[in-house]
Amino acid sequence: MPNRTVFFISDGTGITAETFGNSILKQFALQPRHVRRPFIDTEDKAHQVVREINHTADVEGKRPIVFTTLVNEEVLAIVKGGSRGMVLDMFQTFVEPLETELGMKSNHRIGRFSDVAASQQYHDRIEAINFSLAHDDGQSARNLAEADVILIGVSRSGKTPTSLYLAMQHGIKAANYPLIPEDFERRTFPSSLSPYKSKCFGLTIAPDRLSEIRNERRPNSKYASLENCRYEVAEAEAMMRREGIAWLSSTHKSIEEIATTILRDIRPDRLIY
Amino acid sequence: MPNRTVFFISDGTGITAETFGNSILKQFALQPRHVRRPFIDTEDKAHQVVREINHTADVEGKRPIVFTTLVNEEVLAIVKGGSRGMVLDMFQTFVEPLETELGMKSNHRIGRFSDVAASQQYHDRIEAINFSLAHDDGQSARNLAEADVILIGVSRSGKTPTSLYLAMQHGIKAANYPLIPEDFERRTFPSSLSPYKSKCFGLTIAPDRLSEIRNERRPNSKYASLENCRYEVAEAEAMMRREGIAWLSSTHKSIEEIATTILRDIRPDRLIY
Repeated sequence: MPNRTVFFISDGTGITAETFGNSILKQFALQPRHVRRPFIDTEDKAHQVVREINHTADVEGKRPIVFTTLVNEEVLAIVKGGSRGMVLDMFQTFVEPLETELGMKSNHRIGRFSDVAASQQYHDRIEAINFSLAHDDGQSARNLAEADVILIGVSRSGKTPTSLYLAMQHGIKAANYPLIPEDFERRTFPSSLSPYKSKCFGLTIAPDRLSEIRNERRPNSKYASLENCRYEVAEAEAMMRREGIAWLSSTHKSIEEIATTILRDIRPDRLIY
Repeated sequence: MPNRTVFFISDGTGITAETFGNSILKQFALQPRHVRRPFIDTEDKAHQVVREINHTADVEGKRPIVFTTLVNEEVLAIVKGGSRGMVLDMFQTFVEPLETELGMKSNHRIGRFSDVAASQQYHDRIEAINFSLAHDDGQSARNLAEADVILIGVSRSGKTPTSLYLAMQHGIKAANYPLIPEDFERRTFPSSLSPYKSKCFGLTIAPDRLSEIRNERRPNSKYASLENCRYEVAEAEAMMRREGIAWLSSTHKSIEEIATTILRDIRPDRLIY
Protein backbone atom coordinates (compact mmCIF):
# COMPACT_ATOMS: atom_id res chain seq x y z
CA MET A 1 0.00 0.00 0.00
CA PRO A 2 1.42 3.38 -0.98
CA ASN A 3 1.49 5.65 2.01
CA ARG A 4 3.33 8.47 0.35
CA THR A 5 2.49 10.49 -2.68
CA VAL A 6 5.02 11.86 -5.13
CA PHE A 7 4.16 14.79 -7.39
CA PHE A 8 5.99 15.55 -10.64
CA ILE A 9 5.40 19.17 -11.52
CA SER A 10 6.58 20.94 -14.61
CA ASP A 11 5.75 23.88 -16.85
CA GLY A 12 6.31 21.57 -19.82
CA THR A 13 5.66 17.90 -20.44
CA GLY A 14 7.17 16.85 -17.13
CA ILE A 15 9.32 14.20 -18.77
CA THR A 16 12.49 15.49 -17.15
CA ALA A 17 10.81 15.79 -13.74
CA GLU A 18 9.64 12.23 -14.00
CA THR A 19 12.88 10.73 -15.29
CA PHE A 20 14.77 12.56 -12.61
CA GLY A 21 12.32 11.75 -9.81
CA ASN A 22 12.00 8.11 -10.71
CA SER A 23 15.70 7.48 -10.86
CA ILE A 24 16.08 8.96 -7.38
CA LEU A 25 13.10 7.09 -5.95
CA LYS A 26 14.51 3.82 -7.29
CA GLN A 27 17.10 4.18 -4.52
CA PHE A 28 14.46 3.63 -1.86
CA ALA A 29 12.36 0.66 -0.86
CA LEU A 30 9.20 2.63 -1.38
CA GLN A 31 6.14 2.31 -3.58
CA PRO A 32 4.64 5.76 -3.57
CA ARG A 33 1.57 6.89 -5.44
CA HIS A 34 2.61 8.96 -8.48
CA VAL A 35 0.80 12.10 -9.57
CA ARG A 36 1.95 13.80 -12.76
CA ARG A 37 1.03 17.43 -13.31
CA PRO A 38 2.41 18.75 -16.60
CA PHE A 39 1.91 22.19 -18.19
CA ILE A 40 1.72 24.10 -14.88
CA ASP A 41 2.45 27.41 -16.54
CA THR A 42 0.24 29.95 -14.80
CA GLU A 43 -0.11 31.17 -11.23
CA ASP A 44 -3.68 29.85 -11.17
CA LYS A 45 -2.55 26.37 -12.04
CA ALA A 46 0.21 26.66 -9.43
CA HIS A 47 -2.30 27.51 -6.71
CA GLN A 48 -4.44 24.58 -7.78
CA VAL A 49 -1.51 22.17 -7.52
CA VAL A 50 -0.59 23.59 -4.12
CA ARG A 51 -4.12 22.88 -2.88
CA GLU A 52 -3.81 19.34 -4.20
CA ILE A 53 -0.47 18.81 -2.45
CA ASN A 54 -1.76 20.19 0.83
CA HIS A 55 -4.92 18.13 0.66
CA THR A 56 -2.79 15.02 0.14
CA ALA A 57 -0.60 15.99 3.10
CA ASP A 58 -3.68 16.29 5.31
CA VAL A 59 -5.20 13.01 4.18
CA GLU A 60 -2.00 10.98 4.40
CA GLY A 61 -0.53 12.64 7.44
CA LYS A 62 2.86 12.75 5.69
CA ARG A 63 4.23 15.45 3.49
CA PRO A 64 4.25 14.52 -0.18
CA ILE A 65 7.52 14.48 -2.13
CA VAL A 66 7.40 17.08 -4.89
CA PHE A 67 9.83 16.89 -7.81
CA THR A 68 9.76 20.05 -9.88
CA THR A 69 11.49 21.33 -12.98
CA LEU A 70 9.55 24.60 -12.89
CA VAL A 71 11.34 27.40 -14.68
CA ASN A 72 8.89 30.24 -14.21
CA GLU A 73 9.96 32.08 -11.05
CA GLU A 74 6.47 33.13 -9.96
CA VAL A 75 5.06 29.65 -10.40
CA LEU A 76 8.01 28.07 -8.62
CA ALA A 77 7.69 30.53 -5.74
CA ILE A 78 4.03 29.63 -5.28
CA VAL A 79 4.75 25.90 -5.19
CA LYS A 80 7.74 26.30 -2.88
CA GLY A 81 6.16 28.86 -0.61
CA GLY A 82 2.60 27.59 -0.47
CA SER A 83 2.84 23.85 -0.39
CA ARG A 84 3.49 21.66 2.60
CA GLY A 85 5.31 19.12 0.45
CA MET A 86 9.01 18.39 0.44
CA VAL A 87 9.95 20.29 -2.70
CA LEU A 88 12.99 18.92 -4.57
CA ASP A 89 13.66 21.61 -7.07
CA MET A 90 15.92 20.54 -9.86
CA PHE A 91 15.91 23.88 -11.55
CA GLN A 92 17.18 26.38 -8.96
CA THR A 93 19.46 23.80 -7.38
CA PHE A 94 21.62 23.51 -10.46
CA VAL A 95 20.89 26.58 -12.54
CA GLU A 96 22.08 29.08 -9.97
CA PRO A 97 25.58 27.63 -9.53
CA LEU A 98 25.81 27.31 -13.31
CA GLU A 99 24.95 30.97 -13.76
CA THR A 100 27.93 31.82 -11.58
CA GLU A 101 30.23 29.38 -13.35
CA LEU A 102 29.25 30.46 -16.84
CA GLY A 103 29.03 34.14 -16.00
CA MET A 104 25.65 34.44 -17.69
CA LYS A 105 22.02 34.53 -16.65
CA SER A 106 19.72 31.69 -17.55
CA ASN A 107 16.87 32.58 -19.83
CA HIS A 108 14.18 30.96 -17.67
CA ARG A 109 12.64 29.58 -20.76
CA ILE A 110 10.09 26.87 -20.33
CA GLY A 111 11.05 23.66 -22.06
CA ARG A 112 8.47 24.09 -24.78
CA PHE A 113 9.13 22.04 -27.83
CA SER A 114 7.62 24.62 -30.17
CA ASP A 115 11.09 25.69 -31.27
CA VAL A 116 12.36 22.13 -31.00
CA ALA A 117 9.59 20.93 -33.30
CA ALA A 118 10.79 23.32 -35.98
CA SER A 119 14.46 22.35 -35.65
CA GLN A 120 16.58 20.26 -37.98
CA GLN A 121 17.36 17.87 -35.15
CA TYR A 122 13.68 17.16 -34.59
CA HIS A 123 13.09 16.74 -38.29
CA ASP A 124 15.93 14.21 -38.46
CA ARG A 125 14.49 12.34 -35.52
CA ILE A 126 11.09 11.98 -37.21
CA GLU A 127 12.85 10.87 -40.39
CA ALA A 128 14.76 8.27 -38.40
CA ILE A 129 11.50 6.92 -36.94
CA ASN A 130 9.99 6.66 -40.43
CA PHE A 131 13.14 4.97 -41.71
CA SER A 132 13.26 2.45 -38.88
CA LEU A 133 9.59 1.65 -39.37
CA ALA A 134 10.00 1.15 -43.11
CA HIS A 135 13.00 -1.09 -42.49
CA ASP A 136 11.53 -3.16 -39.71
CA ASP A 137 11.84 -6.91 -39.99
CA GLY A 138 13.71 -6.89 -43.28
CA GLN A 139 10.69 -5.29 -44.98
CA SER A 140 12.78 -3.33 -47.40
CA ALA A 141 16.34 -3.58 -48.64
CA ARG A 142 15.97 -0.17 -50.29
CA ASN A 143 18.14 2.63 -48.96
CA LEU A 144 20.02 0.37 -46.58
CA ALA A 145 23.02 2.49 -47.49
CA GLU A 146 21.36 5.27 -45.47
CA ALA A 147 21.05 3.17 -42.32
CA ASP A 148 23.23 4.11 -39.36
CA VAL A 149 22.95 0.58 -38.02
CA ILE A 150 21.33 -2.69 -39.11
CA LEU A 151 20.30 -4.98 -36.27
CA ILE A 152 20.33 -8.68 -37.05
CA GLY A 153 19.18 -11.65 -35.01
CA VAL A 154 16.62 -14.42 -34.82
CA SER A 155 12.93 -13.61 -34.61
CA ARG A 156 11.99 -12.15 -31.18
CA SER A 157 15.51 -11.36 -30.06
CA GLY A 158 14.58 -7.70 -29.44
CA LYS A 159 15.45 -6.08 -32.75
CA THR A 160 12.23 -4.16 -33.37
CA PRO A 161 11.85 -2.31 -30.06
CA THR A 162 15.58 -1.55 -30.02
CA SER A 163 15.48 -0.11 -33.56
CA LEU A 164 12.51 2.09 -32.74
CA TYR A 165 14.11 3.23 -29.51
CA LEU A 166 17.37 4.16 -31.28
CA ALA A 167 15.37 6.20 -33.77
CA MET A 168 13.06 7.83 -31.25
CA GLN A 169 15.60 8.65 -28.58
CA HIS A 170 18.77 9.21 -30.59
CA GLY A 171 17.64 9.98 -34.15
CA ILE A 172 19.54 6.93 -35.40
CA LYS A 173 18.32 5.30 -38.60
CA ALA A 174 18.14 1.72 -37.45
CA ALA A 175 17.06 -1.01 -39.84
CA ASN A 176 16.55 -4.55 -38.65
CA TYR A 177 16.74 -7.87 -40.43
CA PRO A 178 15.64 -11.25 -39.11
CA LEU A 179 17.94 -14.26 -39.44
CA ILE A 180 15.67 -17.12 -40.43
CA PRO A 181 16.17 -20.91 -40.79
CA GLU A 182 16.68 -20.49 -44.56
CA ASP A 183 19.70 -18.28 -43.85
CA PHE A 184 21.16 -20.98 -41.64
CA GLU A 185 20.62 -23.75 -44.18
CA ARG A 186 22.28 -21.66 -46.88
CA ARG A 187 25.21 -21.06 -44.52
CA THR A 188 25.92 -17.72 -46.15
CA PHE A 189 25.43 -14.22 -44.90
CA PRO A 190 22.19 -12.66 -46.26
CA SER A 191 23.23 -11.19 -49.61
CA SER A 192 21.26 -7.95 -49.25
CA LEU A 193 23.27 -7.17 -46.10
CA SER A 194 26.71 -8.10 -47.44
CA PRO A 195 27.62 -4.60 -48.61
CA TYR A 196 26.76 -3.24 -45.16
CA LYS A 197 28.43 -5.75 -42.90
CA SER A 198 30.31 -3.05 -41.02
CA LYS A 199 27.02 -1.47 -39.96
CA CYS A 200 25.52 -4.72 -38.75
CA PHE A 201 25.09 -5.38 -35.05
CA GLY A 202 23.77 -8.67 -33.72
CA LEU A 203 21.33 -9.42 -30.94
CA THR A 204 21.22 -12.82 -29.40
CA ILE A 205 19.16 -14.24 -26.57
CA ALA A 206 19.19 -17.27 -24.27
CA PRO A 207 17.25 -20.11 -25.96
CA ASP A 208 15.01 -20.77 -22.95
CA ARG A 209 14.02 -17.10 -22.72
CA LEU A 210 13.41 -17.02 -26.48
CA SER A 211 11.21 -20.09 -26.24
CA GLU A 212 9.17 -18.42 -23.49
CA ILE A 213 8.66 -15.27 -25.57
CA ARG A 214 7.75 -17.21 -28.71
CA ASN A 215 5.34 -19.41 -26.77
CA GLU A 216 3.33 -16.32 -25.85
CA ARG A 217 2.75 -15.69 -29.54
CA ARG A 218 2.49 -19.22 -30.94
CA PRO A 219 1.99 -21.68 -28.11
CA ASN A 220 3.29 -25.20 -28.68
CA SER A 221 4.57 -24.46 -32.17
CA LYS A 222 7.79 -25.83 -33.61
CA TYR A 223 8.80 -22.15 -33.90
CA ALA A 224 8.59 -21.76 -30.12
CA SER A 225 9.99 -25.14 -29.11
CA LEU A 226 13.09 -25.08 -26.97
CA GLU A 227 14.84 -27.41 -29.39
CA ASN A 228 14.24 -25.12 -32.35
CA CYS A 229 15.20 -22.02 -30.34
CA ARG A 230 18.46 -23.71 -29.36
CA TYR A 231 19.14 -24.52 -32.99
CA GLU A 232 18.38 -21.02 -34.29
CA VAL A 233 20.37 -19.24 -31.60
CA ALA A 234 23.40 -21.52 -32.07
CA GLU A 235 23.32 -21.01 -35.83
CA ALA A 236 22.86 -17.24 -35.55
CA GLU A 237 25.74 -16.91 -33.09
CA ALA A 238 27.94 -19.10 -35.31
CA MET A 239 27.14 -16.89 -38.29
CA MET A 240 27.90 -13.67 -36.42
CA ARG A 241 31.16 -15.13 -35.14
CA ARG A 242 32.10 -16.30 -38.62
CA GLU A 243 31.32 -12.93 -40.18
CA GLY A 244 33.00 -10.93 -37.44
CA ILE A 245 29.88 -9.07 -36.41
CA ALA A 246 29.70 -7.51 -32.96
CA TRP A 247 26.77 -8.77 -30.91
CA LEU A 248 25.33 -8.83 -27.45
CA SER A 249 22.75 -10.80 -25.56
CA SER A 250 19.42 -9.14 -24.92
CA THR A 251 18.37 -11.73 -22.33
CA HIS A 252 18.89 -9.61 -19.23
CA LYS A 253 18.96 -6.20 -20.85
CA SER A 254 16.32 -3.56 -21.40
CA ILE A 255 16.04 -1.80 -24.75
CA GLU A 256 17.70 1.24 -23.13
CA GLU A 257 20.74 -0.78 -22.14
CA ILE A 258 20.95 -2.52 -25.50
CA ALA A 259 20.67 0.79 -27.35
CA THR A 260 23.31 2.51 -25.20
CA THR A 261 25.73 -0.36 -25.75
CA ILE A 262 25.17 -0.40 -29.51
CA LEU A 263 25.66 3.34 -29.73
CA ARG A 264 28.88 3.14 -27.79
CA ASP A 265 30.25 0.29 -29.89
CA ILE A 266 29.12 1.08 -33.39
CA ARG A 267 28.84 4.85 -33.49
CA PRO A 268 31.27 6.28 -31.00
CA ASP A 269 31.07 9.56 -32.90
CA ARG A 270 27.48 9.90 -31.73
CA LEU A 271 28.71 9.92 -28.16
CA ILE A 272 30.50 13.17 -28.79
CA TYR A 273 28.16 15.44 -30.62
CA MET B 1 32.23 26.96 -31.92
CA PRO B 2 31.77 25.10 -28.64
CA ASN B 3 34.23 26.31 -26.08
CA ARG B 4 32.93 24.26 -23.21
CA THR B 5 32.56 20.57 -22.82
CA VAL B 6 29.80 18.87 -20.90
CA PHE B 7 30.20 15.33 -19.62
CA PHE B 8 27.29 13.05 -18.76
CA ILE B 9 28.53 10.33 -16.45
CA SER B 10 26.54 7.45 -15.12
CA ASP B 11 26.94 3.91 -13.81
CA GLY B 12 24.03 2.92 -16.03
CA THR B 13 22.84 4.04 -19.44
CA GLY B 14 23.20 7.72 -18.62
CA ILE B 15 19.73 8.50 -19.89
CA THR B 16 18.76 10.28 -16.69
CA ALA B 17 22.04 12.22 -16.58
CA GLU B 18 21.49 13.37 -20.12
CA THR B 19 17.81 14.25 -19.79
CA PHE B 20 18.56 16.16 -16.62
CA GLY B 21 21.68 17.86 -17.97
CA ASN B 22 20.11 18.86 -21.25
CA SER B 23 17.05 20.38 -19.69
CA ILE B 24 19.27 22.52 -17.46
CA LEU B 25 21.63 23.50 -20.29
CA LYS B 26 18.64 24.58 -22.38
CA GLN B 27 18.42 27.51 -19.98
CA PHE B 28 21.67 28.94 -21.25
CA ALA B 29 22.74 30.47 -24.55
CA LEU B 30 25.49 27.92 -24.90
CA GLN B 31 26.38 25.24 -27.41
CA PRO B 32 28.75 23.00 -25.55
CA ARG B 33 30.37 19.85 -26.85
CA HIS B 34 28.64 16.80 -25.35
CA VAL B 35 30.50 13.74 -24.16
CA ARG B 36 28.46 10.78 -22.93
CA ARG B 37 30.14 8.21 -20.72
CA PRO B 38 27.71 5.46 -19.70
CA PHE B 39 28.42 2.32 -17.65
CA ILE B 40 31.15 3.91 -15.46
CA ASP B 41 30.83 1.21 -12.83
CA THR B 42 34.38 0.51 -11.65
CA GLU B 43 37.08 2.59 -10.02
CA ASP B 44 39.31 2.03 -13.06
CA LYS B 45 36.72 3.49 -15.39
CA ALA B 46 36.25 6.39 -12.97
CA HIS B 47 39.96 7.20 -13.06
CA GLN B 48 39.90 7.06 -16.84
CA VAL B 49 37.00 9.51 -17.03
CA VAL B 50 38.75 11.80 -14.55
CA ARG B 51 41.81 11.88 -16.82
CA GLU B 52 39.58 12.72 -19.75
CA ILE B 53 37.88 15.55 -17.86
CA ASN B 54 41.19 16.99 -16.70
CA HIS B 55 42.70 16.76 -20.16
CA THR B 56 39.71 18.67 -21.53
CA ALA B 57 40.09 21.30 -18.81
CA ASP B 58 43.74 21.78 -19.79
CA VAL B 59 43.04 21.98 -23.51
CA GLU B 60 40.06 24.31 -23.24
CA GLY B 61 41.27 26.40 -20.36
CA LYS B 62 37.82 26.18 -18.79
CA ARG B 63 36.54 23.60 -16.43
CA PRO B 64 34.12 21.18 -18.04
CA ILE B 65 30.58 20.84 -16.68
CA VAL B 66 30.04 17.31 -15.38
CA PHE B 67 26.51 15.98 -14.84
CA THR B 68 26.52 12.76 -12.89
CA THR B 69 23.96 10.30 -11.65
CA LEU B 70 26.63 8.03 -10.14
CA VAL B 71 25.30 5.88 -7.36
CA ASN B 72 28.40 3.95 -6.39
CA GLU B 73 30.03 5.91 -3.58
CA GLU B 74 33.61 5.00 -4.44
CA VAL B 75 33.18 5.89 -8.10
CA LEU B 76 31.43 9.14 -7.26
CA ALA B 77 34.18 10.06 -4.79
CA ILE B 78 36.84 9.56 -7.47
CA VAL B 79 35.01 11.74 -9.97
CA LYS B 80 34.23 14.43 -7.40
CA GLY B 81 37.62 14.38 -5.76
CA GLY B 82 39.87 13.84 -8.75
CA SER B 83 38.39 15.86 -11.52
CA ARG B 84 38.83 19.53 -12.17
CA GLY B 85 35.35 19.77 -13.67
CA MET B 86 32.32 21.44 -12.14
CA VAL B 87 30.53 18.36 -10.86
CA LEU B 88 26.74 18.66 -10.69
CA ASP B 89 25.77 15.60 -8.77
CA MET B 90 22.15 14.75 -9.02
CA PHE B 91 22.39 11.76 -6.80
CA GLN B 92 23.82 12.99 -3.49
CA THR B 93 22.10 16.33 -3.83
CA PHE B 94 18.65 14.83 -3.60
CA VAL B 95 19.13 11.41 -2.09
CA GLU B 96 20.59 12.62 1.19
CA PRO B 97 17.71 14.93 2.13
CA LEU B 98 15.30 12.19 1.10
CA GLU B 99 17.01 9.70 3.41
CA THR B 100 16.32 12.06 6.29
CA GLU B 101 12.72 12.71 5.22
CA LEU B 102 11.87 9.07 4.68
CA GLY B 103 13.82 7.82 7.67
CA MET B 104 15.49 5.13 5.59
CA LYS B 105 18.81 4.59 3.87
CA SER B 106 18.99 4.48 0.11
CA ASN B 107 20.15 1.22 -1.36
CA HIS B 108 22.78 2.76 -3.63
CA ARG B 109 21.66 0.44 -6.33
CA ILE B 110 22.81 1.21 -9.82
CA GLY B 111 19.94 1.78 -12.20
CA ARG B 112 20.50 -1.49 -14.00
CA PHE B 113 17.54 -2.58 -16.01
CA SER B 114 18.26 -6.26 -15.40
CA ASP B 115 15.46 -6.43 -12.85
CA VAL B 116 13.39 -3.98 -14.87
CA ALA B 117 13.70 -6.20 -17.96
CA ALA B 118 12.14 -9.07 -16.06
CA SER B 119 9.26 -7.00 -14.65
CA GLN B 120 5.62 -7.01 -15.67
CA GLN B 121 5.79 -3.32 -16.43
CA TYR B 122 8.60 -3.83 -18.92
CA HIS B 123 6.77 -6.76 -20.48
CA ASP B 124 3.66 -4.61 -20.92
CA ARG B 125 5.72 -1.88 -22.53
CA ILE B 126 7.16 -4.25 -25.11
CA GLU B 127 3.65 -5.57 -25.75
CA ALA B 128 2.44 -2.01 -26.26
CA ILE B 129 5.19 -1.37 -28.82
CA ASN B 130 4.24 -4.51 -30.71
CA PHE B 131 0.57 -3.56 -30.57
CA SER B 132 1.18 -0.02 -31.82
CA LEU B 133 3.34 -1.33 -34.64
CA ALA B 134 0.73 -3.89 -35.71
CA HIS B 135 -1.95 -1.20 -35.60
CA ASP B 136 -0.03 1.50 -37.41
CA ASP B 137 -1.76 3.27 -40.26
CA GLY B 138 -5.00 1.33 -39.97
CA GLN B 139 -3.17 -1.90 -40.82
CA SER B 140 -5.39 -4.00 -38.66
CA ALA B 141 -8.83 -3.60 -37.16
CA ARG B 142 -8.26 -6.73 -35.07
CA ASN B 143 -8.09 -6.31 -31.32
CA LEU B 144 -8.95 -2.62 -31.48
CA ALA B 145 -10.94 -3.33 -28.33
CA GLU B 146 -7.57 -3.72 -26.59
CA ALA B 147 -6.32 -0.30 -27.67
CA ASP B 148 -5.91 2.35 -24.97
CA VAL B 149 -6.21 5.06 -27.59
CA ILE B 150 -6.81 5.27 -31.35
CA LEU B 151 -5.26 8.27 -33.05
CA ILE B 152 -7.03 9.51 -36.15
CA GLY B 153 -6.10 12.19 -38.65
CA VAL B 154 -5.07 12.80 -42.24
CA SER B 155 -1.91 11.22 -43.64
CA ARG B 156 1.27 12.86 -42.18
CA SER B 157 -0.43 14.61 -39.30
CA GLY B 158 1.91 12.96 -36.79
CA LYS B 159 -0.04 9.85 -35.82
CA THR B 160 2.69 7.25 -36.28
CA PRO B 161 5.51 8.79 -34.23
CA THR B 162 3.03 9.78 -31.52
CA SER B 163 1.63 6.24 -31.29
CA LEU B 164 5.08 4.73 -31.03
CA TYR B 165 6.12 7.28 -28.44
CA LEU B 166 3.04 6.59 -26.30
CA ALA B 167 3.86 2.88 -26.43
CA MET B 168 7.59 3.23 -25.85
CA GLN B 169 7.50 5.84 -23.10
CA HIS B 170 4.21 5.11 -21.37
CA GLY B 171 3.31 1.52 -22.26
CA ILE B 172 0.10 2.74 -23.88
CA LYS B 173 -1.42 0.58 -26.62
CA ALA B 174 -1.91 3.21 -29.28
CA ALA B 175 -3.44 2.30 -32.63
CA ASN B 176 -3.64 4.82 -35.42
CA TYR B 177 -5.98 5.16 -38.35
CA PRO B 178 -5.63 7.48 -41.33
CA LEU B 179 -8.60 9.55 -42.48
CA ILE B 180 -8.51 9.37 -46.27
CA PRO B 181 -10.44 11.14 -49.04
CA GLU B 182 -12.82 8.15 -49.34
CA ASP B 183 -13.85 8.69 -45.72
CA PHE B 184 -14.67 12.32 -46.49
CA GLU B 185 -16.70 11.48 -49.59
CA ARG B 186 -18.70 8.92 -47.67
CA ARG B 187 -19.33 11.52 -44.96
CA THR B 188 -19.58 8.83 -42.32
CA PHE B 189 -17.26 7.92 -39.53
CA PRO B 190 -15.07 4.90 -40.46
CA SER B 191 -17.19 1.91 -39.51
CA SER B 192 -14.37 -0.13 -37.98
CA LEU B 193 -13.80 2.68 -35.48
CA SER B 194 -17.44 3.32 -34.59
CA PRO B 195 -17.53 0.99 -31.59
CA TYR B 196 -14.45 2.71 -30.15
CA LYS B 197 -15.31 6.35 -30.65
CA SER B 198 -14.67 7.16 -27.01
CA LYS B 199 -11.06 6.02 -27.38
CA CYS B 200 -10.43 8.06 -30.50
CA PHE B 201 -8.26 11.16 -30.37
CA GLY B 202 -7.71 13.38 -33.40
CA LEU B 203 -4.57 15.06 -34.69
CA THR B 204 -4.84 17.94 -37.07
CA ILE B 205 -2.21 20.15 -38.68
CA ALA B 206 -2.02 23.48 -40.50
CA PRO B 207 -2.53 22.84 -44.23
CA ASP B 208 0.59 24.73 -45.31
CA ARG B 209 2.77 22.74 -42.91
CA LEU B 210 1.12 19.52 -44.08
CA SER B 211 1.79 20.44 -47.70
CA GLU B 212 5.47 21.03 -46.87
CA ILE B 213 5.79 17.65 -45.17
CA ARG B 214 3.99 15.80 -47.96
CA ASN B 215 6.09 17.55 -50.61
CA GLU B 216 9.21 16.01 -49.07
CA ARG B 217 7.76 12.59 -49.79
CA ARG B 218 5.92 13.14 -53.04
CA PRO B 219 7.00 16.42 -54.59
CA ASN B 220 4.46 18.20 -56.78
CA SER B 221 1.80 15.55 -56.31
CA LYS B 222 -1.89 16.24 -55.92
CA TYR B 223 -1.48 14.54 -52.53
CA ALA B 224 0.94 17.26 -51.42
CA SER B 225 -0.74 20.25 -53.05
CA LEU B 226 -1.81 23.03 -50.73
CA GLU B 227 -5.32 22.91 -52.17
CA ASN B 228 -5.71 19.21 -51.43
CA CYS B 229 -4.18 19.60 -47.97
CA ARG B 230 -6.66 22.37 -47.20
CA TYR B 231 -9.53 20.17 -48.34
CA GLU B 232 -8.44 17.13 -46.33
CA VAL B 233 -7.75 19.10 -43.15
CA ALA B 234 -11.09 20.95 -43.35
CA GLU B 235 -12.97 17.69 -43.90
CA ALA B 236 -11.12 15.88 -41.12
CA GLU B 237 -11.75 18.69 -38.64
CA ALA B 238 -15.42 18.82 -39.64
CA MET B 239 -15.72 15.08 -39.09
CA MET B 240 -14.08 15.21 -35.67
CA ARG B 241 -16.30 18.12 -34.64
CA ARG B 242 -19.40 16.31 -35.89
CA GLU B 243 -18.48 13.12 -34.05
CA GLY B 244 -17.47 14.87 -30.84
CA ILE B 245 -13.90 13.64 -30.91
CA ALA B 246 -11.25 15.53 -28.93
CA TRP B 247 -8.37 16.71 -31.08
CA LEU B 248 -5.34 18.96 -31.11
CA SER B 249 -3.08 20.52 -33.67
CA SER B 250 0.36 18.97 -34.10
CA THR B 251 1.70 21.93 -36.10
CA HIS B 252 3.80 23.50 -33.38
CA LYS B 253 4.05 20.55 -31.04
CA SER B 254 6.63 17.84 -30.60
CA ILE B 255 5.59 14.23 -30.18
CA GLU B 256 6.37 14.57 -26.45
CA GLU B 257 3.94 17.45 -26.09
CA ILE B 258 1.26 15.75 -28.15
CA ALA B 259 1.62 12.54 -26.14
CA THR B 260 1.49 14.32 -22.78
CA THR B 261 -1.65 16.20 -23.80
CA ILE B 262 -3.38 13.06 -25.06
CA LEU B 263 -2.52 11.19 -21.88
CA ARG B 264 -3.90 13.98 -19.75
CA ASP B 265 -7.12 14.23 -21.74
CA ILE B 266 -7.96 10.67 -22.60
CA ARG B 267 -6.46 8.61 -19.81
CA PRO B 268 -6.34 10.73 -16.71
CA ASP B 269 -6.06 7.53 -14.68
CA ARG B 270 -2.63 7.00 -16.19
CA LEU B 271 -1.50 10.22 -14.62
CA ILE B 272 -1.96 8.72 -11.19
CA TYR B 273 -0.46 5.31 -11.18
